[in-house]
Amino acid sequence: MKKIVIGLLGFGTVGSGTAAILENNRYDISTRTNADITIKKALVHDIHKPRPDCRGIILTDDPREITDDPEIDIVVEVMGGIEPARTLILTAMANGKNVVTANKDLLAQNGEELLEAAKKNGRDLYFEASVAGGIPIIAALRQSLTANRISSLLGIINGTTNYILSAMTEQGRNFADVLKEAQELGYAEADPVSDVEGLDAARKLAILSSLAFNTRVTFNDVYAEGISNVSPEDIHYADELGCVIKLLAIAKNQEEGIEVRVHPALISKKHPLANISGVYNAIYVTGDAVGETMFYGKGAGALPTGSSVVADIIQIVRNMSAGSEGLLNCGCYRNYPIISTDDFTTAYYIRLKVKDEPKVFATLALFFAEAGISFHSIIQKPRPDKSAEIALVTHPCREGQLRQAIQSLNSYSKLDKIYNVIRLETNGISI
Amino acid sequence: MKKIVIGLLGFGTVGSGTAAILENNRYDISTRTNADITIKKALVHDIHKPRPDCRGIILTDDPREITDDPEIDIVVEVMGGIEPARTLILTAMANGKNVVTANKDLLAQNGEELLEAAKKNGRDLYFEASVAGGIPIIAALRQSLTANRISSLLGIINGTTNYILSAMTEQGRNFADVLKEAQELGYAEADPVSDVEGLDAARKLAILSSLAFNTRVTFNDVYAEGISNVSPEDIHYADELGCVIKLLAIAKNQEEGIEVRVHPALISKKHPLANISGVYNAIYVTGDAVGETMFYGKGAGALPTGSSVVADIIQIVRNMSAGSEGLLNCGCYRNYPIISTDDFTTAYYIRLKVKDEPKVFATLALFFAEAGISFHSIIQKPRPDKSAEIALVTHPCREGQLRQAIQSLNSYSKLDKIYNVIRLETNGISI
Repeated sequence: MKKIVIGLLGFGTVGSGTAAILENNRYDISTRTNADITIKKALVHDIHKPRPDCRGIILTDDPREITDDPEIDIVVEVMGGIEPARTLILTAMANGKNVVTANKDLLAQNGEELLEAAKKNGRDLYFEASVAGGIPIIAALRQSLTANRISSLLGIINGTTNYILSAMTEQGRNFADVLKEAQELGYAEADPVSDVEGLDAARKLAILSSLAFNTRVTFNDVYAEGISNVSPEDIHYADELGCVIKLLAIAKNQEEGIEVRVHPALISKKHPLANISGVYNAIYVTGDAVGETMFYGKGAGALPTGSSVVADIIQIVRNMSAGSEGLLNCGCYRNYPIISTDDFTTAYYIRLKVKDEPKVFATLALFFAEAGISFHSIIQKPRPDKSAEIALVTHPCREGQLRQAIQSLNSYSKLDKIYNVIRLETNGISI
Repeated sequence: MKKIVIGLLGFGTVGSGTAAILENNRYDISTRTNADITIKKALVHDIHKPRPDCRGIILTDDPREITDDPEIDIVVEVMGGIEPARTLILTAMANGKNVVTANKDLLAQNGEELLEAAKKNGRDLYFEASVAGGIPIIAALRQSLTANRISSLLGIINGTTNYILSAMTEQGRNFADVLKEAQELGYAEADPVSDVEGLDAARKLAILSSLAFNTRVTFNDVYAEGISNVSPEDIHYADELGCVIKLLAIAKNQEEGIEVRVHPALISKKHPLANISGVYNAIYVTGDAVGETMFYGKGAGALPTGSSVVADIIQIVRNMSAGSEGLLNCGCYRNYPIISTDDFTTAYYIRLKVKDEPKVFATLALFFAEAGISFHSIIQKPRPDKSAEIALVTHPCREGQLRQAIQSLNSYSKLDKIYNVIRLETNGISI
């Protein structure tokens, strides 16, 4: 039986999960791979910190102990962040090691460089765990769906925001309140910005859309907007419109280029993504041959993410046995432009308050008409203070058109307030 | 660029879909594989039948023209049935060809023989299209989830029955009526037995459970029960109980062995499978590391199924380039017993009519108590004819226990009728 030696760069949640799976399922994994896989060393910050569950793994605070150890076949990078992770991965590959990484920040920014280095060195670089924890969406895009031209990808790929929106929807509570609870329960970080502002999802979307469309998309290309402005009232109106509000990661291959954006969106309750709640993730992919597919599962956690890391390790071990490492290279053979926000095309939900007087609605409607926007549906409710609260849903239009209408509205004396503007996604199933 | 030559055994729905995808996405597929993939020949029944869309493929009615053609690298078997498909696949592999097959009947019966032959000949045998059309569940079980010990698998893997049950649920119509419509629309065969009696799903479940549990499960091992007895009244009661009725394919790795069964079942509306409607398929897999995952998509059709066939072709082409064919062998290194129906453990929904007299319910409850079965919930409704209709839901029990209770009931003079007994699946999410 072939002996395979692993070095871990990082020994936190995902590193520990990886070690636990390799130990718990040792018999099955060795039988499935015909190899004996052992973690020899792990890089940690503090080698003196007591670790009750260290499974005989040698701890080191010197990364060269791992990248330069000739016994180590596969380096598993689960430390996160750009540097030193980037340099360590490049060093490991230059030293002939295959690499598994769970590092979305690094891949979303330096994916091309890493994949080119893997190719140059003839090494494997696998990264299933970088997006959506245990869901094998990377393998699906790199392998199972390769017969397709993929036209769009809609994802719920951030568990924190999905937990918050689910709780707001089910319990009618407001954002700040639920965020605080999520922080206490450990579902949200002490500094929640990366999650609630959509940056984490944007990084994952950059990785997914590069693979789906075979064109380079980096973090900076992705428009990101968070959920902190979503109110219980918006969720209530969405419900009346037959929708829920989700933080969606959306990538579309349009004639003019690639549209990549992360933002809260109304989506029909009949859409499969509408039922994904709590900390679960799902990615809804449309291909020209396969049609609509969806991949669902836990988006984070030691064992789900470890499941993806170990699947990558097993694939590399199989490749090593066959002498076929280094074959899955960077697939970005297209060079599509990224569509600018002005040209995003989508429907909108707009909630506003105006004076409840004759002609006001007609004027308001005219602003939209002048921008070339027509309405899909309108809900108007009288209020005790002689104003009217209106929720409008437009037909799809360019974002530039919407800005024009909003500008006209903002200069209108009968407008009290625009509470919120939220996009409405009709891909797959319309409302 | 490497030239890869394909021979099709069969040129019906899936064969045509495969040819269409290879032509429509030629540029992308050749770039992704660095190979030029061409279908040279297709085996057909009648070479004189006019085929407007034959794409320059040579038609033949002699299978040896394909299995023995030295130019052909990959044989794609999409003719279905046991023979001559089995012999042709074995011949093709003996002649050094890699094989892709969509043939669930053959794999569910002779999977071991075919995989052994692939191993012996050092050839690839891929069969993603044999289960759930475009959904990459086979790749998930053979590769992406290999870090896991899988404990259970719940699937909606027959589109015809799911279409019928969805229509019965949404429109309150009866089975015969909806079946007739499904036949007219082409969603059900003229001879619907294989679909509506659960045999098609049983074949697919045999394939999936062999892969999930690494133990041999064949079609004959799977208990199969169809949906023809499900009535609109049962669906209505299920709704009151917070459930829907689906034809579920269920496989569980229990301490005593493997439980594999296909039957209609009540399942909580909160379960992700409850929302899979119409011709869509989904497979819900639970692994010890990944937790709950679900794979969703179209279960049939020329292009979705062709998407899986072409994905397999692409994988084989990549393996050929690396010289790494023949590595994914039969993974049945376990030898678990198959649990007999008497030992199936599940909850039950039982709908019956009794005389509306004192003591009747007490007696009935005693029959269940004597069999060691307790109730989860009870709905009793008075009827104009001095009888009572009762819907019972039990806690999980062994099927043998239920038979004992039913036997006592059947000999009870106050029983008018047992309308139906349907299992209730609580795996994942209970009601």
